[in-house]
Amino acid sequence: MSDAGHFADRLAAAVERKGAPLCVGLDPDHALMPERLGVAEFCRGIVDAVADVAVAVKPQSAFFEAQGAEGWAALAEVCDHARTAGLLVLVDAKRGDVPSTARAYAAALAPLADAVTVNPYLGHDSLEPFFACDGLGVFVVVKTSNPSSVDVQDVQLADGRPLWQHVADLVDRWGADDVGASGLSSVGAVVGATFPQEVAEARQLLPRSVLLLPGVGAQGARAEDLAEAFSVGPAGALVSASRSVLYADRGAGWQEAAAAAARRLADELRSVAVAG
Amino acid sequence: MSDAGHFADRLAAAVERKGAPLCVGLDPDHALMPERLGVAEFCRGIVDAVADVAVAVKPQSAFFEAQGAEGWAALAEVCDHARTAGLLVLVDAKRGDVPSTARAYAAALAPLADAVTVNPYLGHDSLEPFFACDGLGVFVVVKTSNPSSVDVQDVQLADGRPLWQHVADLVDRWGADDVGASGLSSVGAVVGATFPQEVAEARQLLPRSVLLLPGVGAQGARAEDLAEAFSVGPAGALVSASRSVLYADRGAGWQEAAAAAARRLADELRSVAVAG
Repeated sequence: MSDAGHFADRLAAAVERKGAPLCVGLDPDHALMPERLGVAEFCRGIVDAVADVAVAVKPQSAFFEAQGAEGWAALAEVCDHARTAGLLVLVDAKRGDVPSTARAYAAALAPLADAVTVNPYLGHDSLEPFFACDGLGVFVVVKTSNPSSVDVQDVQLADGRPLWQHVADLVDRWGADDVGASGLSSVGAVVGATFPQEVAEARQLLPRSVLLLPGVGAQGARAEDLAEAFSVGPAGALVSASRSVLYADRGAGWQEAAAAAARRLADELRSVAVAG
Repeated sequence: MSDAGHFADRLAAAVERKGAPLCVGLDPDHALMPERLGVAEFCRGIVDAVADVAVAVKPQSAFFEAQGAEGWAALAEVCDHARTAGLLVLVDAKRGDVPSTARAYAAALAPLADAVTVNPYLGHDSLEPFFACDGLGVFVVVKTSNPSSVDVQDVQLADGRPLWQHVADLVDRWGADDVGASGLSSVGAVVGATFPQEVAEARQLLPRSVLLLPGVGAQGARAEDLAEAFSVGPAGALVSASRSVLYADRGAGWQEAAAAAARRLADELRSVAVAG
């Protein structure tokens, strides 16, 4: 956790400095990575390749946990390296548990990260330990990018709306008390970029939340469809791409290919976020 | 992951052998543990103390993660120790993420555990990598024991029911194809023991699922209120207590106190589960 102030204000300053709201997801998968590289070495290399165009990196906890204790140590090392490189670090862990357990999760993750992702299914008291961490951004999962997100998130409520819109209302309420000078709250929302219509609706329901939009690139979403997310300003959304940047090339040119893929996406986002 | 066959059948055999469906939650918290003990040492000691009366232990991943890489190594060590002691191991991690990430989580957890807990908010494709692990039990969070579980889980659907009942229907469907000789599925459900009415309703909606019932003891639920969970047999539910067993005594007698607390709870459960 950083003591450098309100998360959304730090994000807004970073977007202004770098010019585009790009986040690069770190999903280190040995089946896709260049051969003979360790997880930490690969991720440090990606961080160095994208640091001048991205505002944030998003290590996906699962891919580090899959390497056991060594992977957990690599996660801490990569987070530290990214922050030293001037990037914000969002640890994507989607935790959610009862309050006594949530406090342990917050203690595990907050020291590594500027922001974390969490799951809303257990309600407010399960997330309160994260909200209570000074300066920590908290992105609550609202509508995800995967096809089966409809199973629960789109179930119809008594008022006719899909469940995810009720969750969006909760997120808006949970974040109302922690709005920074940028006009944005430290409580954000994860909305899959693969559902542009839902992204636009989420923007209406969550006028003070930064929207974290994963799914661009390998999952099929396109930057140009996300303009409405930026109607509140260029830091109103953070667009995240993982595989399309990480695995742009598996050969000797992997770092250059990642840098080029990140730069292309940043250029696309720059026009979308400024026009939004 | 065990290659020793269907999870629910192994659970049913263990309940028959030990006589009571008791699970002891391992939530190692330095603020509550006996002084000068490490997480692994404490948990091994609890395992040894309860191994003759409990059928399972449930390490809560958060408390290990809070110790960093060392904690993750301790989790693997404790899981191994418990399985050597003849206990089933449920890793309580409540993971839920998009399919490519869920595969990494399954790769991280399945080697440690006989069963895991998962979160349903992202839908079927987010859990399929766990269902696909041969012999692995998967407990899907349906209705949790914390007060704020009402925020999302109890929201009213268009058909008049609370959301958690829709999730229960999904869990029943997801587990229908993997019912063992015991008549129970490898896909179970987490239902907070603090809501006895909901436990009884979940039993009706999930006739083939093992119900994992946390919240007995420190969270206030009582074994005697859970009889209906056992209407399908003594392995139809697994009752989990954590703090009331782990922290029965912080002094020199911590192991004996934990053994005695587990034995008392097992005795209570024996009469409830057989009468159910």
